[in-house]
Amino acid sequence: MVHETRIRVRYAETDQMGVAYHSNFLIWFEVGRVELMRAIGFNYKDMEQREGCYIAVAEARCRYKMPARYDEELIVRTWVRNVRASLVHFAYEVLNTAGNALLAEGETIHIVTDSGMQRRSMPEPYLAALEKSRSE
Amino acid sequence: MVHETRIRVRYAETDQMGVAYHSNFLIWFEVGRVELMRAIGFNYKDMEQREGCYIAVAEARCRYKMPARYDEELIVRTWVRNVRASLVHFAYEVLNTAGNALLAEGETIHIVTDSGMQRRSMPEPYLAALEKSRSE
Amino acid sequence: MVHETRIRVRYAETDQMGVAYHSNFLIWFEVGRVELMRAIGFNYKDMEQREGCYIAVAEARCRYKMPARYDEELIVRTWVRNVRASLVHFAYEVLNTAGNALLAEGETIHIVTDSGMQRRSMPEPYLAALEKSRSE
Amino acid sequence: MVHETRIRVRYAETDQMGVAYHSNFLIWFEVGRVELMRAIGFNYKDMEQREGCYIAVAEARCRYKMPARYDEELIVRTWVRNVRASLVHFAYEVLNTAGNALLAEGETIHIVTDSGMQRRSMPEPYLAALEKSRSE
Repeated sequence: MVHETRIRVRYAETDQMGVAYHSNFLIWFEVGRVELMRAIGFNYKDMEQREGCYIAVAEARCRYKMPARYDEELIVRTWVRNVRASLVHFAYEVLNTAGNALLAEGETIHIVTDSGMQRRSMPEPYLAALEKSRSE
Repeated sequence: MVHETRIRVRYAETDQMGVAYHSNFLIWFEVGRVELMRAIGFNYKDMEQREGCYIAVAEARCRYKMPARYDEELIVRTWVRNVRASLVHFAYEVLNTAGNALLAEGETIHIVTDSGMQRRSMPEPYLAALEKSRSE
Repeated sequence: MVHETRIRVRYAETDQMGVAYHSNFLIWFEVGRVELMRAIGFNYKDMEQREGCYIAVAEARCRYKMPARYDEELIVRTWVRNVRASLVHFAYEVLNTAGNALLAEGETIHIVTDSGMQRRSMPEPYLAALEKSRSE
Repeated sequence: MVHETRIRVRYAETDQMGVAYHSNFLIWFEVGRVELMRAIGFNYKDMEQREGCYIAVAEARCRYKMPARYDEELIVRTWVRNVRASLVHFAYEVLNTAGNALLAEGETIHIVTDSGMQRRSMPEPYLAALEKSRSE
């Protein structure tokens, strides 16, 4: 399952090269995976609050193909590439809606932790939701 | 007492107008007041961790005179304008070091809260440090 | 005319107090006024590119009533408080959609400039659109 | 040659997990390479303004080992891993000064462009400075 969410490039996200500053793509990836999780019934906020369970970023990577410009509407395509009890691997593509051009592609690898940043397993319903999303 | 701290404008802080995006001044104000507090022996991190006491922003204001540009070194001048048990009022000026030009001036008003965002009084040693700074 | 636009609080926008960091409200104000301008047919991107005409922030102010939290959906209410050939004054309210609580209110004053940051008048159709919005 | 520069984690850079939000490491990498370039006499601002020559990020990667916390002083270690006329490859390590612990390591690959984002060669003196830095 590939989830698609839309965002619009904010003025604050541009830099003096006239394009979106590159670190914002990591923030847009986060929007993508939050919305993917919402779509599959995985409430990350609840997992933090009720279970004291966090998903921390262990690795992030982005390849930039074309710049994103101010006020452009973008599509963030997000999918689960791999999931285990204490690890989640997401992949992303960012396209613009005007030309359907691929602006960037990336991936993030996350480990599951408690509030003290110690590794733990994800509670079963959350894990099951991610596994289901991956296999669809 | 006016405290001075230096920061350098980051590329990430510019926007496509070729100048620092205006919300960054509020972040630089924060750098200014953290460094003022450090200079007077007020360890904000400790107050949060040991006392569960927070300083939340209740109001922020900035007047922009001249743009700050990429890679410019800036001086943030910070002072305590007013302080009470559960309220602190800071004022700021931002200048560039090259021309000593005033780029912006501003102020922030803060209320003292517990971790549940309920208003409380600041522990005595912290309050005393701010009062001393104001009167010098 | 009061324009309403919706945004959702991003994880990147939170701080360790567990709420949205205060400078983000200025960025959300920007989203509010960009969307107001889009709604009244004022294309700010075009004004920059075709007319070399910019709207620079001269003053920003925000009063914080209640914190905005991660993943909350917010409404930014934006209206033109005053407009002249080379000055625009916007006002804002930020509410959450869950409880309709007022989280913050603010205002920004802008001057109209050329690409060299010199004051100039806004081209007529853009000015007219803002004046119309204000009087409705 | 490995260049070291120091930064301090800002409150604005933390998130509700109580640690620095991960995209900030890309911004700190930028601080690292700007300061490396300054140290070897490569003025990036001048190259943009006088030569119309830009260095755009083509790929960024970061592996996160340990969290960076509010108010911690960090060292960003930066070096040139590879350089060609129209490509530069930087590598980074981020450590904290308190415990000298490795928090993250990463790399960025950049292509050299004109103001229209078309690939071009870097002017000779800038290229020579980077090559010299790499071989030392």
